[in-house]
Amino acid sequence: MAIKLYGVLVSTNALRVMACLAEKDLDYEFVNIDMRNKEHKSPAFLSRNPFGQVPAFEDGDLKLFESRAITQYLAHTYSDKGTNLIIHDPKKMAIVGVWIEVESQKFDQVGSKLAWELAYKPMFGMTVDEAVVEENEKKLEQVLDVYEARLSESKYLGSDCFTLADLHHLPVLKYLFGTKTKRLFDARPHVSAWAAEIMSRPAWVKASST
Amino acid sequence: MAIKLYGVLVSTNALRVMACLAEKDLDYEFVNIDMRNKEHKSPAFLSRNPFGQVPAFEDGDLKLFESRAITQYLAHTYSDKGTNLIIHDPKKMAIVGVWIEVESQKFDQVGSKLAWELAYKPMFGMTVDEAVVEENEKKLEQVLDVYEARLSESKYLGSDCFTLADLHHLPVLKYLFGTKTKRLFDARPHVSAWAAEIMSRPAWVKASST
Repeated sequence: MAIKLYGVLVSTNALRVMACLAEKDLDYEFVNIDMRNKEHKSPAFLSRNPFGQVPAFEDGDLKLFESRAITQYLAHTYSDKGTNLIIHDPKKMAIVGVWIEVESQKFDQVGSKLAWELAYKPMFGMTVDEAVVEENEKKLEQVLDVYEARLSESKYLGSDCFTLADLHHLPVLKYLFGTKTKRLFDARPHVSAWAAEIMSRPAWVKASST
Repeated sequence: MAIKLYGVLVSTNALRVMACLAEKDLDYEFVNIDMRNKEHKSPAFLSRNPFGQVPAFEDGDLKLFESRAITQYLAHTYSDKGTNLIIHDPKKMAIVGVWIEVESQKFDQVGSKLAWELAYKPMFGMTVDEAVVEENEKKLEQVLDVYEARLSESKYLGSDCFTLADLHHLPVLKYLFGTKTKRLFDARPHVSAWAAEIMSRPAWVKASST
């Protein structure tokens, strides 16, 4: 199969690519990486991702890493397949680009820390650091206040249709929604409706239940 | 003037956009934001950037924020002006996209913290937290080890020519090179040569001496 994704199913970064592959209706092979036995630090894997982190990706002779670079590649290269996740109008796409950056620079910075503390640490039998949770929940509230205002005037974050800017949030949302942090989303009606809608997309339901 | 950049000259994020505007040889008006008097938290500025951070940008009726979204817009929209900062071959551009993400997700995460501790805090008369410096210098070394390997086989990070992937590093490099952290770059010959070369580009010399 031309497309291969190397990762683990619990990785939010691998899941971001899986969400995109599902929306684009692309077949691919998932290659599980045995992180317990440090396969991600092996020379073979480091040649795919020199940082030794999942996921890594290939499409024929093209090898990529960094989940958001992979989704950009898929959205542009397979623009005629499945859901269109980008916009061809340059000015409208520039606005989508702003919200893609907001996810990366603002939402993910705090959302991933909260997911680590509240979802992953309990899974691995580690102790939650409540000070880190409190600090990052405060920061997340500031981000979600901006989202609430944005989503009161735009159906989706980047545009009036679903794009990569929304899709990139899905994996961290999945993990946060199983924790007490979900209340911060529930308290904001537009954010809450947006999250419920994008999490109910058939492609996401399929990708996240793999 | 159609293009306006709202910011402060000491902001690495504003400087990232200025570097791009200089490479694209575009005229623009720089609008200084009075951060001491909290102009960045005023309703007028928040309508340009809802996070209340510099920079904000406009090109005619288009309003953007997030420095890396602005540079992407400039590189694509003004592709026929100045230096070409993107690559039209989709597979080659996908590789550039990987290194754009590496700057954002790996380099900037630690580079900005070090610049804050070692360059900005002394400027503002604040006390440097040496534990934060030590922790982030260790992380930066891991990133620079990957860069050293990459730059031993590719003239620039994303490609054999200068692209956004290199340009995005310039502002943080400028500040780090005035601190003790510069030794971590000096210790890696390919990284050191790359940094020296991109920092000597006429457009950067012009942008960073404004």
